[in-house]
Amino acid sequence: MLNTYIYADLTPEKMADLLDRNTDPNHAIQDTVLSIIEDVKQHGDAALKSYAKQFDKVELEKLYLDSDDIDNLAMTISRDQMRALEIAFQNIHKFHQTQLKRERTVETMPGVKCWREVRPIEKVGLYIPGGSAVLPSTLLMLGVPARIAGCKEIVVCSPPQNNGKINGFVAYCLKLLKIDKIYLVGGAQAVAAMAFGTQSIPKVNKIFGPGNQFVTKAKGIIQGMTDVSIDMPAGPSEVLVIADETANPAYVAADLLAQAEHGIDSQAVLVTTSSQLADQVNQELKAQLDVLPRKELAAKAIENSYTVITENIQEAMDFSNRYAPEHLIIESDDWKPLINKVQNAGSVFLGHLTPESAGDYASGTNHTLPTSGYARSYSGVSVDSFVKKITFQHITEQGLEQIGSTVEILAELEGLQAHKNAVSIRKKKQ
Amino acid sequence: MLNTYIYADLTPEKMADLLDRNTDPNHAIQDTVLSIIEDVKQHGDAALKSYAKQFDKVELEKLYLDSDDIDNLAMTISRDQMRALEIAFQNIHKFHQTQLKRERTVETMPGVKCWREVRPIEKVGLYIPGGSAVLPSTLLMLGVPARIAGCKEIVVCSPPQNNGKINGFVAYCLKLLKIDKIYLVGGAQAVAAMAFGTQSIPKVNKIFGPGNQFVTKAKGIIQGMTDVSIDMPAGPSEVLVIADETANPAYVAADLLAQAEHGIDSQAVLVTTSSQLADQVNQELKAQLDVLPRKELAAKAIENSYTVITENIQEAMDFSNRYAPEHLIIESDDWKPLINKVQNAGSVFLGHLTPESAGDYASGTNHTLPTSGYARSYSGVSVDSFVKKITFQHITEQGLEQIGSTVEILAELEGLQAHKNAVSIRKKKQ
Repeated sequence: MLNTYIYADLTPEKMADLLDRNTDPNHAIQDTVLSIIEDVKQHGDAALKSYAKQFDKVELEKLYLDSDDIDNLAMTISRDQMRALEIAFQNIHKFHQTQLKRERTVETMPGVKCWREVRPIEKVGLYIPGGSAVLPSTLLMLGVPARIAGCKEIVVCSPPQNNGKINGFVAYCLKLLKIDKIYLVGGAQAVAAMAFGTQSIPKVNKIFGPGNQFVTKAKGIIQGMTDVSIDMPAGPSEVLVIADETANPAYVAADLLAQAEHGIDSQAVLVTTSSQLADQVNQELKAQLDVLPRKELAAKAIENSYTVITENIQEAMDFSNRYAPEHLIIESDDWKPLINKVQNAGSVFLGHLTPESAGDYASGTNHTLPTSGYARSYSGVSVDSFVKKITFQHITEQGLEQIGSTVEILAELEGLQAHKNAVSIRKKKQ
Repeated sequence: MLNTYIYADLTPEKMADLLDRNTDPNHAIQDTVLSIIEDVKQHGDAALKSYAKQFDKVELEKLYLDSDDIDNLAMTISRDQMRALEIAFQNIHKFHQTQLKRERTVETMPGVKCWREVRPIEKVGLYIPGGSAVLPSTLLMLGVPARIAGCKEIVVCSPPQNNGKINGFVAYCLKLLKIDKIYLVGGAQAVAAMAFGTQSIPKVNKIFGPGNQFVTKAKGIIQGMTDVSIDMPAGPSEVLVIADETANPAYVAADLLAQAEHGIDSQAVLVTTSSQLADQVNQELKAQLDVLPRKELAAKAIENSYTVITENIQEAMDFSNRYAPEHLIIESDDWKPLINKVQNAGSVFLGHLTPESAGDYASGTNHTLPTSGYARSYSGVSVDSFVKKITFQHITEQGLEQIGSTVEILAELEGLQAHKNAVSIRKKKQ
């Protein structure tokens, strides 16, 4: 049963409380993560092997699987499963490849040409969570844009199963991506290994991927202390469903539960103009929850979630934009005019037949998205995340004549004489 | 006189040493900055006024200047100066406006449509350094892309002069940008004010701009502890000049000095295939340095800098790509074939007549660029920095039929039954 609030009755304090989900600053694990990072930095592979023994309960002779190992593991999955992964790969590829574009040159003044060129980030590290939850879809979501961007080196880390291997689904995705090596390292130690490099694992320029609170904490620390960057800060997953009286309560409930089964800290928020629908959704939640294998987890997440009843659809959009959800599902016959009203969200699912699961796996959009309100200033992962755009410029004699005195005046007024000289000396000698 | 190294003789250790310029971890100021942040968070405007008294030597009644104040200050600058700022504004606008593009919709499968839409970051904060160095150009470099992106609220902070005002050049740039308020706050306290909001200053979603080590440190801390993001990490400015025997040593020296005058921690690196040119540049450095007003500063920066002599241009490009300079100037007749070899750099200046100063002020490209090797994974500021790209998708009945079983299989293999249900329930009821 979702807690229910009336939008018009929300005090500013209650509103702030509902919007806030940065509740876990992870102070408790800071010291643990710092000591893991220091250990990996100092002892490299030896530290990684020791953590594998401690956390993954496996003694590793080598820290990676090569292409033969990967081939063998990939063969263990069914034809249907291979086919499903292939379709997901293709759709993700099809959508993401349109993101890489040449830009045109701009002649800002006669003889002054400026443009941007796209270059891949050379070495990227992808963290793929493993252990209990196996997430081959995450490997596709990160590997496909990395390949399209043209990254030279793609380092993949994932925790080993206790037989010292990885899951066959992950192996098959590696094959689809033509990546012939995977490092058997998980947790904060994987992030540290990719940030500093070890005997086996190359140092990378940017680290991507979701993970538990140790991985997330390690990424935050690495971003602050090294020249390695990260995709984005991460928090628990969340969905906000906007539904009006045309919505199907069974679909709405199914979408909320799909979010809730991720973990007890997941949030599933319903914002609706119809209190009748809210009641129906609550009934559906009970019925559908009962038959879920991850029922207890989902039930707890639902307890942390809530419904907001609004007067009209504009209020619903306002609440959603303030919340800035990772996933936004708009279940209404009239979704079209609402597109332009979406200001803050990670990924948006429109209409009654567009469940979030489609985008989580196979429609083509990326599922690595900003959570915890970061959608106010971050985009989800895309090919853009794997490239830099470098500006270039070329000035001719004519251009220097056009722009020279402007630069001289501006350098002068900022008190930077040598900046001015760099222009003056060129004007003189022509 | 630049220290000189032969590329072929560089040991891996020496190479690492030359590439490393993250030498100031700012640990010393961490505590000061943390206490300023906490103070501003708790006491708001009162704290800001007290810091203005302490650091800027001015008692402020109100923490901002309004449009009348700005108009009056803007009138104090000369016509030529106004004109120069206008030309810079226009060129920056012309270049940056091409960066905002609609993207096309991709139908990944029949009935499955995916696309991205661009939305401005609603509230952005621009930090404009002040005090001794006055940087109106930075206001243009941040304000123009913010305006093009369509940000609803642009909050500008800059430290007050000790008369409680700002410089006329900054005022004129505010007018060009149609920004009618500026907050008289500098340093770490400005970053804290924009991150948390105070009685006078609105909280923003993202903070941009360069600054001293206190500002930089505050941005790093804010990024880690709040949901406010920042443009990029910052370090001392730097240039790398690649020059061959066709280069003019006087131009090369002028470009190195333009970098060096920024501060003693600036780096100006010369990479050349010609040891004769290296000698000539050293002579020019001496001659040009002598007449600079910021001579002592520049001389110290030159001491921290160095020359690398390479066998050929490919080695020079290799060194540059490993260094990943903020600014790269290629002074060679033969610059064209080198464009494709540039992998890591912030902004690139091509040929003999394209000094970095042109891009610093007026050619149109942005001067807010990644330093300290961050060009390996970061781009400079652009319109992209002020927007989010949100993915949208819509699936029809036909689309659900096409994609449904793929999603079901993938959800199943990841053990996420509720994700599967969200599709199955929709297939059933049609």
